[in-house]
Amino acid sequence: MAQNLLKQTYPWIKTPLIIGAPMRLISLAPLAIEVSRAGGIGFIGSGTDTSTLEHILLHAQSLLLSHPIPHSPPTTLPLGIGFINWGASLPLALPLIARFHPAAVWFFAPASLASLASWTAATRAASPATKIWIQIGSVAAALAVTRACAPDVLVVQGTDAGGHGLVRGAGVVSLVPEVADALSALAAEEEGGKAPMLVAAGGIAEARGAAAALALGAGGVVLGTRLLASPEANIADGYRKEVLRARDGGQSTVRTKVYDALRGTTGWGEEYNGRAVVNRSFVDAGEGMGEEENKRLYEAEMEKGDAGWGVEGRMTTYAGAAVGLVKEVKGAADIVEEVREGAVRVLEGLMGEARTKL
Amino acid sequence: MAQNLLKQTYPWIKTPLIIGAPMRLISLAPLAIEVSRAGGIGFIGSGTDTSTLEHILLHAQSLLLSHPIPHSPPTTLPLGIGFINWGASLPLALPLIARFHPAAVWFFAPASLASLASWTAATRAASPATKIWIQIGSVAAALAVTRACAPDVLVVQGTDAGGHGLVRGAGVVSLVPEVADALSALAAEEEGGKAPMLVAAGGIAEARGAAAALALGAGGVVLGTRLLASPEANIADGYRKEVLRARDGGQSTVRTKVYDALRGTTGWGEEYNGRAVVNRSFVDAGEGMGEEENKRLYEAEMEKGDAGWGVEGRMTTYAGAAVGLVKEVKGAADIVEEVREGAVRVLEGLMGEARTKL
Repeated sequence: MAQNLLKQTYPWIKTPLIIGAPMRLISLAPLAIEVSRAGGIGFIGSGTDTSTLEHILLHAQSLLLSHPIPHSPPTTLPLGIGFINWGASLPLALPLIARFHPAAVWFFAPASLASLASWTAATRAASPATKIWIQIGSVAAALAVTRACAPDVLVVQGTDAGGHGLVRGAGVVSLVPEVADALSALAAEEEGGKAPMLVAAGGIAEARGAAAALALGAGGVVLGTRLLASPEANIADGYRKEVLRARDGGQSTVRTKVYDALRGTTGWGEEYNGRAVVNRSFVDAGEGMGEEENKRLYEAEMEKGDAGWGVEGRMTTYAGAAVGLVKEVKGAADIVEEVREGAVRVLEGLMGEARTKL
Repeated sequence: MAQNLLKQTYPWIKTPLIIGAPMRLISLAPLAIEVSRAGGIGFIGSGTDTSTLEHILLHAQSLLLSHPIPHSPPTTLPLGIGFINWGASLPLALPLIARFHPAAVWFFAPASLASLASWTAATRAASPATKIWIQIGSVAAALAVTRACAPDVLVVQGTDAGGHGLVRGAGVVSLVPEVADALSALAAEEEGGKAPMLVAAGGIAEARGAAAALALGAGGVVLGTRLLASPEANIADGYRKEVLRARDGGQSTVRTKVYDALRGTTGWGEEYNGRAVVNRSFVDAGEGMGEEENKRLYEAEMEKGDAGWGVEGRMTTYAGAAVGLVKEVKGAADIVEEVREGAVRVLEGLMGEARTKL
C-alpha cells in the first residue's frame, strides 16, 4: 500500500495518520473506536486468546451502529484487530475476519514465518478488503516478512516500545531509516516491486515524537503508552496511576523477562521480552530472589487491587520509554487530534525557523 | 545559550548545526577541523588521557594557520574538546583551555557532580569565550547538571549511541522531548531562568535521523558512528571495514561491559557500559567463557592487526545502532554537508506533502 493510497483505503482517516496500538486486554472496542472516530485507526488488542474476539467485535459493531464514524465504508469495520500470532487461533479468527471485514489485521510474533504466511493468505482469501499489517523489530525480519507475506503495512517497532518486543533492538531513529532503505532495495530487485508502507512504533507519545517519526520515513505513527492514560483504555486505576507517576522513562522502565515469568506467561519466544516500569518484583529478582518466592509475593499482591501497582508494588505496568511524557488523563480522540495537529505544527515551526535562519 | 545565539557564538557554522562527537583517540585534529570547516562544530576526543592534548591542539593550530576556516573568530579555536571527566586531568587541561580558547568543552561522565561543577567554574574562569557542553543520558542528570553547572549546551545522548553511555536508557525519540519539558519547567521556576540548548546524540547517521532530532526539539545533531567511515577518522582499517560491514544495527550491536573488561578499562562507573558490534569475545562471554581466558584470546588477537576485527574477531568495534546506515567512506566535510542539507530537504518534503495531502 503506497502512502498515497492511504486515504483511499481508509476514507475516514486524517493525515498524518495516528494509530492506536492493539494493546492486549486494554485496547477493546471503546478505545479502538475512539481512535478511529478521531481520524486515526484504532486496533483491538485480541492478543493470544481469540475466544473473546467475537464478543469484542459484536460490541464494536453495536457501538458503531448507534454512533457511526463519518466517511467509514459500509462494508468494512473501520478498525483493526491485533493478534499475537504464537497464541492466537486461526480457526477461531478466520470466520470472524470473514464476517466483520476489519479494515486491517496486525500480526506480531508468529511461531514461524510459515505460520505468518498462512495467516496472511487465509486472511486475504477470507476478506480481500482487510489490509495486512505486520509488526517487526529488525531489518532482517522486515525483509523476511516482506518476502514471505508482501504485507500492506510494516509496523516498525523500536526498542523504546512498552510491552513485548525484541530483547535486542534499536530505537526508531535508527531502525526506521534502515528498514526503509532495505525495503527500497528489495523492491528495486523485482520489476514493479513495491515496498510496504512503514508505520513507526515505540517511544512516541506526543507531537514531537510523531513529527520525528514522519521525518524518519514513517507514513503513520503508533501510540500505545500514551493511550493507557485515556478513560477508554480498559486498565485498572492502579495501572493508569502508575503510568502517570513514572518519569524519566529510560530509567524508570526496563526490558525484562521477569514479569512474564511471574505472571506465568510462557509462550513468548526467547527473542522477546517486555518493557515495563521497574517495580519491587524486578528489583527483588535483580537482588537474587528466587522465582518461586517472587511469584508467591506477586500472587499475594494481586489481592491488593489498585494498591498493588507502584514502585514498591508487584503488579506489572507495561509501558514504553515515553511514559515520562504521559502526564494527564485525556480522551483518546483528543489525544489523537492533539498529536496529529501538534506534529504538523512542529514541522511548520521548523520550516519557519529554517526560512528565517538558514 | 538560546538557539538563536548559536551563530553569534559560532560565526562559522551553518544551521541546522551538525556536530562531530569527541570520539576518544579517533576524533583528533584532522577530523574535528574538517567537521568545523564544513560549517559544523568538530570536537577533539581527548577522553581520559589529557597528557596528549597539548600535542593535538598544537597540531590543530598549525593546520588552521595554514588553512583557516572562514568566519572563524580570531581569538578562539573553532573546535571543541571532549573530556571523559572521571579520567581527565583538570590541572593539565586548564592551562591548555586558557591558552587555546576552544569554542567549547564537552564534559561527560564525571566522578561526581561536585567535580563537574569544578571543571565548569574553572573553565569559565580560564576562558570566558569557551562554551560549556555537558553530556547526559537521563532526565534526572539533565536537571542535576543544569542546576549545578548551568551549561550552555546539554548533549542528550540516547541509548542507540555507540561507545560509552548509560546501561539503562531511552532513545532520543523519548529522551529529548522529556528532557526539554523538564528543563523548561526548571527554567520557569526561576525569574529570568533560561534552559540550555539541547543537541541530540545517539542513533543518528543521516538526514532522516537529523531531521527527526530537530523535530524532537534539538538545536543540533551529533554524528559519531557515521564519521568513523571518514578518511579523517583516526582508526584502523579493520575497524572501519567492520563499521561498513555491520547491518541491522539493533541486532548487530549491543550495550555491554564485556569489552571494557577485556581491554582492562576499569574507570567507568557502574551505570556506564558501551555499545559495540557483537563479536567472538562477546559471544564467548555469553556462552560462559571466563574473563581471564577471554582476555588472553583478546590480547592474542591484537597481533593480527586489521584481521582482528569482524564478527569472528575479538577487537572492539564501538559503534551505534545506526551502524547499518553507514555504507561508504566519505570525507567528513562531505558527510556534514550531506546530512545538514539532507535534513532540510526531508523537512521541506514533509511540508510539501502536508500542503497537498492534509
